[in-house]
Amino acid sequence: MNHSKDPFQSALKVQEAIPQPPSVNPAWKKGHKQELLPIDTYIEGILSGNRVILSKAITLVESYLPEHRALAQQIIERCLPYTGNCIRIGITGIPGAGKSTFIESFGTFLTHQGHKVAVLAIDPSSQRTKGSILGDKTRMESLSVDQNAFIRPSPSAGSLGGVAQKTRESMMLCEAAQFDVIIVETVGVGQSETAVHSMVDFFLLLMIAGAGDELQGIKRGIMEMADALMINKADGDNLSAAQRAQASYKSALRIFPQPPSGWNPQVEIMSALENKGVEKVWDMIIDYLNTTKQNGYFQQKRNEQNQSILLESIKDNLLSGFFSHPVLKTALKTTEKKLLSGQVNPYVAAENLLNLYFEQLKS
Amino acid sequence: MNHSKDPFQSALKVQEAIPQPPSVNPAWKKGHKQELLPIDTYIEGILSGNRVILSKAITLVESYLPEHRALAQQIIERCLPYTGNCIRIGITGIPGAGKSTFIESFGTFLTHQGHKVAVLAIDPSSQRTKGSILGDKTRMESLSVDQNAFIRPSPSAGSLGGVAQKTRESMMLCEAAQFDVIIVETVGVGQSETAVHSMVDFFLLLMIAGAGDELQGIKRGIMEMADALMINKADGDNLSAAQRAQASYKSALRIFPQPPSGWNPQVEIMSALENKGVEKVWDMIIDYLNTTKQNGYFQQKRNEQNQSILLESIKDNLLSGFFSHPVLKTALKTTEKKLLSGQVNPYVAAENLLNLYFEQLKS
Repeated sequence: MNHSKDPFQSALKVQEAIPQPPSVNPAWKKGHKQELLPIDTYIEGILSGNRVILSKAITLVESYLPEHRALAQQIIERCLPYTGNCIRIGITGIPGAGKSTFIESFGTFLTHQGHKVAVLAIDPSSQRTKGSILGDKTRMESLSVDQNAFIRPSPSAGSLGGVAQKTRESMMLCEAAQFDVIIVETVGVGQSETAVHSMVDFFLLLMIAGAGDELQGIKRGIMEMADALMINKADGDNLSAAQRAQASYKSALRIFPQPPSGWNPQVEIMSALENKGVEKVWDMIIDYLNTTKQNGYFQQKRNEQNQSILLESIKDNLLSGFFSHPVLKTALKTTEKKLLSGQVNPYVAAENLLNLYFEQLKS
Repeated sequence: MNHSKDPFQSALKVQEAIPQPPSVNPAWKKGHKQELLPIDTYIEGILSGNRVILSKAITLVESYLPEHRALAQQIIERCLPYTGNCIRIGITGIPGAGKSTFIESFGTFLTHQGHKVAVLAIDPSSQRTKGSILGDKTRMESLSVDQNAFIRPSPSAGSLGGVAQKTRESMMLCEAAQFDVIIVETVGVGQSETAVHSMVDFFLLLMIAGAGDELQGIKRGIMEMADALMINKADGDNLSAAQRAQASYKSALRIFPQPPSGWNPQVEIMSALENKGVEKVWDMIIDYLNTTKQNGYFQQKRNEQNQSILLESIKDNLLSGFFSHPVLKTALKTTEKKLLSGQVNPYVAAENLLNLYFEQLKS
């Protein structure tokens, strides 16, 4: 354990044996160049659950270098047949709801039950700082040294879509590495909850009692997305407040239409800190799995998610192909000026720009 | 006037002197082929307000024949500098709200004030019957023979987007023909209200009292779009019900956020049948114009509408270019099957399909 005076380095207790991206663990920068291994080494390592190899492979997935990207895709392709045999759980909540403490407690509960737990993250703020932020992960002390757990900070990327893609691809590798419970966590700001919801089977909203709804800043859309609400910090003086909040949210949920899963969202209270009630989450998830595997919704949802990725990727690329094309960017600006001065029929202007674009593609 | 036993023909009192599309007035089918005039004839006719020439030009706009379309675009291009000097009013309401009676009364009021009024329509049901439906227009008896009015039934088209485009282009020609008040009406079903709202300056919602909100089936989104609500049929036994409804809707509107126009939506009562209160609509519109021309919103909204057409047309075409390409349609089906059986990474599948598409474009 490195205890140099650099505060950043001394804070690093998260899985020190596992190579982290240089932005996370600068110690790896010095002299630890990412060396590419033969592809079979990655595959064998991943399939046998080797966390060091898994981590190196995920670093390739997160990389922007073309040679890394190409190798990463080959690895993913070979791992694909081994994915899917897991439960994917999304967890969100405002800062202060106690996500890290909960994941620590919940993850430890699961590994003691014989599961292998991977924890990934989508951290929107990392997009601004362009580096992965450990955030609360330094507080998952017990889980971070658990042999049957794997914790990875959020990738950084230029956009939420980029981060979501890399997280999904990392998830594929974790599944191939025999992790049967995948947790994807995010902070309750921005659009990241929608991104997480679109890649998991079960979506959990963590809340605390004692603050009014409006203060919790939970968007109605997020509540409607949740399969379960867990009201955390139901301990000490907070206990009765938590129980009141539970009753409130139960009534609130009743006004929402029945979800397509056929499983009615539940509201429970817990204290992750005191390790009380955490197992209720797993009971709910098991119940959810039973229901949705029986009624077919479980697989249907996964199919829809994949189909969605396919179509959204196609659409995004088609549009950006046009709007980021240098010739079209210039022509569009000129057209917009003419439009402002009423000189052109906008329908015809659109046709002309499209013809220009398709000409450009041919050349 | 043709009074043959064919009930469809005898019902036709709308502007018989004006050539109608054959689907509207079959009499024109026999031996009245649409002959193309020299372009200057169209231009001179339109600019001098000749309603017969205007109607022929709009028939070209509505046509799908390439030679008609090409000529229509040339006509529009030459007319463009003469457009914009008008007020565009959208009117919607559920069937039975009395739109035709209102437009008859309102239109006549305006022509008596010296205005020239064009009435266009977007009739969603015409998409299914593939022919223009006159609907209530046969009841606009007085306006239909008014020299300073021009009434045109909804175009038919394969899609709402197509109908909206043709209506907008027809509107450009009406404006060039010196019609200074353009009314676009639609029935309150489907998405047509959004289409109408996106092409007008002022959006009016016609309602009746005496039916509960839920029975009126007015979507909240439509109410939020409205610049004014007119409660019609405020006569006889209905009067007090109308006044109560007015009070209700006034309170309802207060909970909506302040609209970007800076002009607060108003609620008035009227009886179009008895010709009472109809002038209030014009007072509101004048007031709206004064406010929004002063604060710049009037022109800003028109600019945004044009910009929107440009970008939406581009996006729609980019996407349909891909999804309707025969080679891509087949490849997409194959890919979707592989996706269902978990054989491919959806991100990579999307990339491959895009590469295939761009190759196809080059050949």
